[in-house]
Amino acid sequence: MPTIDVPELTRLLDGTYAEARALVRTNLAEHSEVLEQAETLSRTDYRERVKELVLTMAATGQTGMGFPREYGGGGDLGASIASFETLAYGDLSVLVKVGVQFGLFGGAILQLGTKRHHDAYLADLITGRLMGCFAMTETGHGSNVQALGTIATYDPATDELVVTTPDEISGKDYIGNAAMHADVAVVFAQLEVGGTSHGVHALVVPLREDGRLLPGVRVEDDGLKMGLNGVDNGRLWFDGVRVPRGNLLDRFASVSEDGVYESPIDNPDRRFFTMLGTLVQGRVCVGGAGINAAKVALTIATKYAVRRRQFNAASPDQEQLLLDYGLHQRRLLPLLARTYALHFAQEVVSAQLHDVFSDAVDDEQARRQLESRAAGTKALGTWHATRTIQECREACGGAGYLAVNRFAALKADTDVFTTFEGDNHVLLQLVAKGLLTDYSSDFEDLDQLGVVRFVAGMALETVIERTSAHKLLERLKDVLPGGSDDWDQEAGLLDPHYQLAMLRFREEHMLSGVARRLKRGIDDGLNPGEVFSRAQDHVIGAARAHVERLVLEAFVDKIGPLPDGDLRAALTLLCNLHALATIEQDRAWFMEHGRLTVQRSKAITREVNDLCLAVRPLAVDLVDGFAVPPELLRSPELLG
Amino acid sequence: MPTIDVPELTRLLDGTYAEARALVRTNLAEHSEVLEQAETLSRTDYRERVKELVLTMAATGQTGMGFPREYGGGGDLGASIASFETLAYGDLSVLVKVGVQFGLFGGAILQLGTKRHHDAYLADLITGRLMGCFAMTETGHGSNVQALGTIATYDPATDELVVTTPDEISGKDYIGNAAMHADVAVVFAQLEVGGTSHGVHALVVPLREDGRLLPGVRVEDDGLKMGLNGVDNGRLWFDGVRVPRGNLLDRFASVSEDGVYESPIDNPDRRFFTMLGTLVQGRVCVGGAGINAAKVALTIATKYAVRRRQFNAASPDQEQLLLDYGLHQRRLLPLLARTYALHFAQEVVSAQLHDVFSDAVDDEQARRQLESRAAGTKALGTWHATRTIQECREACGGAGYLAVNRFAALKADTDVFTTFEGDNHVLLQLVAKGLLTDYSSDFEDLDQLGVVRFVAGMALETVIERTSAHKLLERLKDVLPGGSDDWDQEAGLLDPHYQLAMLRFREEHMLSGVARRLKRGIDDGLNPGEVFSRAQDHVIGAARAHVERLVLEAFVDKIGPLPDGDLRAALTLLCNLHALATIEQDRAWFMEHGRLTVQRSKAITREVNDLCLAVRPLAVDLVDGFAVPPELLRSPELLG
Repeated sequence: MPTIDVPELTRLLDGTYAEARALVRTNLAEHSEVLEQAETLSRTDYRERVKELVLTMAATGQTGMGFPREYGGGGDLGASIASFETLAYGDLSVLVKVGVQFGLFGGAILQLGTKRHHDAYLADLITGRLMGCFAMTETGHGSNVQALGTIATYDPATDELVVTTPDEISGKDYIGNAAMHADVAVVFAQLEVGGTSHGVHALVVPLREDGRLLPGVRVEDDGLKMGLNGVDNGRLWFDGVRVPRGNLLDRFASVSEDGVYESPIDNPDRRFFTMLGTLVQGRVCVGGAGINAAKVALTIATKYAVRRRQFNAASPDQEQLLLDYGLHQRRLLPLLARTYALHFAQEVVSAQLHDVFSDAVDDEQARRQLESRAAGTKALGTWHATRTIQECREACGGAGYLAVNRFAALKADTDVFTTFEGDNHVLLQLVAKGLLTDYSSDFEDLDQLGVVRFVAGMALETVIERTSAHKLLERLKDVLPGGSDDWDQEAGLLDPHYQLAMLRFREEHMLSGVARRLKRGIDDGLNPGEVFSRAQDHVIGAARAHVERLVLEAFVDKIGPLPDGDLRAALTLLCNLHALATIEQDRAWFMEHGRLTVQRSKAITREVNDLCLAVRPLAVDLVDGFAVPPELLRSPELLG
Repeated sequence: MPTIDVPELTRLLDGTYAEARALVRTNLAEHSEVLEQAETLSRTDYRERVKELVLTMAATGQTGMGFPREYGGGGDLGASIASFETLAYGDLSVLVKVGVQFGLFGGAILQLGTKRHHDAYLADLITGRLMGCFAMTETGHGSNVQALGTIATYDPATDELVVTTPDEISGKDYIGNAAMHADVAVVFAQLEVGGTSHGVHALVVPLREDGRLLPGVRVEDDGLKMGLNGVDNGRLWFDGVRVPRGNLLDRFASVSEDGVYESPIDNPDRRFFTMLGTLVQGRVCVGGAGINAAKVALTIATKYAVRRRQFNAASPDQEQLLLDYGLHQRRLLPLLARTYALHFAQEVVSAQLHDVFSDAVDDEQARRQLESRAAGTKALGTWHATRTIQECREACGGAGYLAVNRFAALKADTDVFTTFEGDNHVLLQLVAKGLLTDYSSDFEDLDQLGVVRFVAGMALETVIERTSAHKLLERLKDVLPGGSDDWDQEAGLLDPHYQLAMLRFREEHMLSGVARRLKRGIDDGLNPGEVFSRAQDHVIGAARAHVERLVLEAFVDKIGPLPDGDLRAALTLLCNLHALATIEQDRAWFMEHGRLTVQRSKAITREVNDLCLAVRPLAVDLVDGFAVPPELLRSPELLG
């Protein structure tokens, strides 16, 4: 049995940004009383307290790491993501308010604005002297941003943009910082110049001066939410609010002095998706936050399970520890393994984000792949959070229901992660779109119907070529022992090449299946919308299979360069557990597609049980590796 | 396509107890403002408001239906369950406080006490003049009630019982009504008479007089919980509190005037489980509450999905309704079908409860089967609630996160259902225990180790005989078309005999598998605890398979006698969807055990998709059939 050196494990998990993470841990531990204040303060006071904490943390440099140094930032996007993720160990209203102010609002100014906007806003927003909000979603339109109702019309007479909410349902909704704290908003609106609509663009609209609402702006508080009540979400309506033309964030499109709309990107769809693409950081952040919230839940449930005894199962004298029950291991340990896998997958996507955005080279393909990967990791990471927190709560019984034991807040606060910053199902469709079109140059223009038509328009060979399932089996033969056609029957279950080959096969088979299905539907003369709707669960399935493969790959790749030793041995056990539990989960599909015999399927289940048993003695060290400061765990009675 | 007569459907669902359910609906609608008050009042005021409402409802007779008429009750246990279940449409703190006062506290007095106690307490507790609590669970012991630490010692000198909490961790915990409102408690304690411990017994201990705590009683508030904050849960410690000997609830055991312990049941384990068995009603109630809470969530999500449009999927002019997306149907409609199935299964277990408890005949076998069925239905019903409410919340996007749209409370309040009134995993072990021992007379005595030893002690033939898988295939041949050995390949997917045969096969195969596994473990000389721990997920799986079969059977049996017509046609669609989605969910197992070919497995998935499409036009009527009063749905913006 390997012995884990916990600090060494933490160093590995913290990676490049150990310093940023350490700063956040220190800040969170110092202000851990906010976890209790979340329960005792009135909603208004809690919001103020959260704002205060956000400013306090901003003053340490923690929240500005992603902004350029010349405005007081840290100039390191990777550090900024690491820092944000780690905030998920603490009160999640603080995390989300940081996300709103520095990620969404600050990110929009930085990415969609130009030097004029940077000069005007960045220094102040980094310190929090200027608070802002990100007014994209409307009551009527969440996922379908292109169909937003808010309008910004250029008025040549005054050289101003006039912002109007045309109807009640086009009011901006669920906007963090809108109800109380935002001085300004980045508003997404249909830009109309000279009677022509140019699609959705972003502009800066002042909301409040000295805390008082400006004329033409109407605000409504979103009221009590399931969680995150330290964030002041609200609704915004604009009644002919006038701002100077220069308030348009004009990196990708501008209105000239003489009132002419100009953009370096001709295609309006492409322009829209390019703008949106620069905001990908938000998704990477939320995915990481979900994964880190899951770590908190697992830390509590695992430590409780090695302390709590119930029933005399193995001895008449002493009740048995929960974690010594086979079922309890089954409930917690695969989730622990998956948390590690997702952590490393998140590390990869963060690094890609850092590289793409820090690099002067504007590689379209890399950007599209980043967007896809960010969408997929966000979906899997946040669903994992929901599932893990729920399982951990149940594994702590009635005690898990008391607010002092953290699960109440963890559950309520993270719940919205699966649907904000992109609904997970919609995000997986985005992933599938990229895969189906192979990130072709038309990628951005395609809506759902477009994808169907695009795929249907390809020759079947092209479909298969693109989805590349046919090449896969050849490659696998080279990689796996024996090199035979029976790779899936002969390879060892614990061989990572085998595990990855299984996930790759599933991904590529599913993807070509979707492509054929779409093509056949159109060839049969069906309405493309109907074709898409009927294939939708396959589309989602293919995307999910793709991301699952990326996640396992990240785990395997992380272990690869590790020196032989106990840490490598421990992570190998965990990686095997994750891989086989993932295959087991979908073993029906593998059997249906000839990649698992009945015997081998049962063998995988036995192997997962054995791996749980092998990981059991390491469980506490593995959660200790997350290094959640004890102040943040609370749970005095669960943890003793 | 069938047309549903919604009132007719509601009559079918309401069944025998339509009147009781109608009264509750009216009461809930009349006081629906409590749903908002839950969000606006302070915790203390909310608790008082909930108490007030419980008393108001008690005055209508709604909460006393299960008590004998001579004390002011309704004398109809079935009506009492139906009434309780329906309360789950409203504020769930009200439901749980009703459960604590009338189900747990009142139920203990009724079932464990004798005429003296009934005369002393029932009339007052039915009106709520006397408030009580049910002090069983301790911080240190939840599921393992037999190991409770609290002691009640008989003192012959004063003819009193002395109640003592020996250590901090043996304090009663999570006790509803304890923090503020209970005048008395039914306390479960180890009864010691003349230096001998006789195991856990219940006695009445006064806690407060005129709202002031009595000497020797220490109370601590459990504080903020994830949900149900209108219920005042607390902890209780007793420091030598003296009560008269007559306070022992002595239906199953008493202490005579001359200080001698007497019981008609010699075996202490059997005595304990007999006492506990009389409290089965609580589990039946919680299961029903879960199922009904799921109905509220489905009503909101379904109605939203036929109103909300997003993305131009099928037409360039109009965005598509959510429920016209294949994936959205897949997310909601199998859950809707399962809700119906569980509703009818719950109807069966309620009727059994009513019969067993209303019948003078004390049929041990029937009681044990009732206990098992109650445990299983509670587990499946409450897990279904957690899953359904979560899916419905996500299906409403960000809007689902606002408290006004009900999901916040539904989710937080029902969360504890899976672990209170018996942790679901422990309950499924209880189910398995009954199946493995065939409810033999030794059933009650057996702990986990006992079950392992019992099974191991049987000859293998007896194991197989008891678990009866071998008889099954013979029976199936008679039932299914062709009568051949290939019943599982030839029968129509929509044939209910086929569907039931599949679930029966799984159940009996899993059960005999568990029996063999336990026997083999012992034969191999392993520690019985270790044997059990390693087989635990199979034990749980077998129990779950058993309950799944009962649930489907209940649905099929309900449709059986319905006249031909649209209602029958609609419910048949729904029953097929439930049955095939259940088989699909576990299709890996069926393939692994030779009961599904790859082709047939894929055909089932296609059929589930087709059934979703067929149920889609009926979805709104099907949720309207639940007849949740509109006042209780709130969600003004979701439902328009």
